[in-house]
Amino acid sequence: MSQPLDAAALATLFTDARTHGGWTSEPVSDDQIRQLYDLVKMGPTSVNCSPARFVFVRTPEGKQRLAPALSSGNLDKTMAAPVTVIAAWDTAFHEQLPFLFPHADAKPWVAATPEAAHKTATYNSTLQAGYLILAARALGLDAGPMAGFDAAKVDAAFFAGTTWKSGLLINLGHGDASKLHGRLPRLDFDAAARLA
Amino acid sequence: MSQPLDAAALATLFTDARTHGGWTSEPVSDDQIRQLYDLVKMGPTSVNCSPARFVFVRTPEGKQRLAPALSSGNLDKTMAAPVTVIAAWDTAFHEQLPFLFPHADAKPWVAATPEAAHKTATYNSTLQAGYLILAARALGLDAGPMAGFDAAKVDAAFFAGTTWKSGLLINLGHGDASKLHGRLPRLDFDAAARLA
Repeated sequence: MSQPLDAAALATLFTDARTHGGWTSEPVSDDQIRQLYDLVKMGPTSVNCSPARFVFVRTPEGKQRLAPALSSGNLDKTMAAPVTVIAAWDTAFHEQLPFLFPHADAKPWVAATPEAAHKTATYNSTLQAGYLILAARALGLDAGPMAGFDAAKVDAAFFAGTTWKSGLLINLGHGDASKLHGRLPRLDFDAAARLA
Repeated sequence: MSQPLDAAALATLFTDARTHGGWTSEPVSDDQIRQLYDLVKMGPTSVNCSPARFVFVRTPEGKQRLAPALSSGNLDKTMAAPVTVIAAWDTAFHEQLPFLFPHADAKPWVAATPEAAHKTATYNSTLQAGYLILAARALGLDAGPMAGFDAAKVDAAFFAGTTWKSGLLINLGHGDASKLHGRLPRLDFDAAARLA
């Protein structure tokens, strides 16, 4: 039996959390990055296939490699963020299945064809990117996910000669609340959900 | 400044949480479902586009409509679960952008072409499915996500004549820990991540 989280924890994860574009000077340590990964890796994926791969870019050299791939609106905040995560997936994820799911040959279930493998890898690695955003918040960090980048340029700069492909960029750090705008509206239950 | 979650909360979300296939008789109320949606809706999406749609199937009639779409391994546990969520997306999500992102015309950024709209809708609704899994855990529920189903059959049974498409099924309830198998391994940091 697990206990529900209290209101303060729900606020940290969901109701008070914001997507930040401005950052304080407080750093993110490599220990925090490893602690973050150790939470994310526990999140569920189809037959435990765990296709997500992550590059934690936190050096000036790494940021400069990333810069040409960013949309103009995402450039300054990404250069200023303590860490930018490249949330990626491994197109060869199925090679890890004998380790990750040892009880049966799971490849026919999730990677029977190249199309099925692609769907499994992209779908599950995207769930894992969502886990990373919330795991960062759970650790007291702020996250700034960004779809506005050129994935082919990121792949060329970071993944040439590998089987990894980029999916999302996520800035991590301690957000500067003074740079936030007002919160945007959300869809009511009746506009986005149904009971059946 | 948000406080990090304590170890018990991290265990509830990540390190002790399990994907359950067996369920106790404890129900999930419609109030809990609405509370769950009210957390999920706050999670970040590209330009706040919020493309996910959710059907919360909790009646015997609803379960029977779902049954023909399930893989044999997912049938019994889904029929037994208090709630099965159809995590879907709206192919016409961009019609809500003037409400969700009122400051600018965001359609050219996320739905300039049918291909771009599809990518935005599937990517962001999948992030939101990940938020739902963790939000359910945050509320003290257990989640059992399942990719093993026939999406075309779910769409025909639930979404005919609409613009919604199914992406993932997620059983919700209180897991029966006596039905769990041992925990599967995860990839170490060095197998799935890099510092740059």
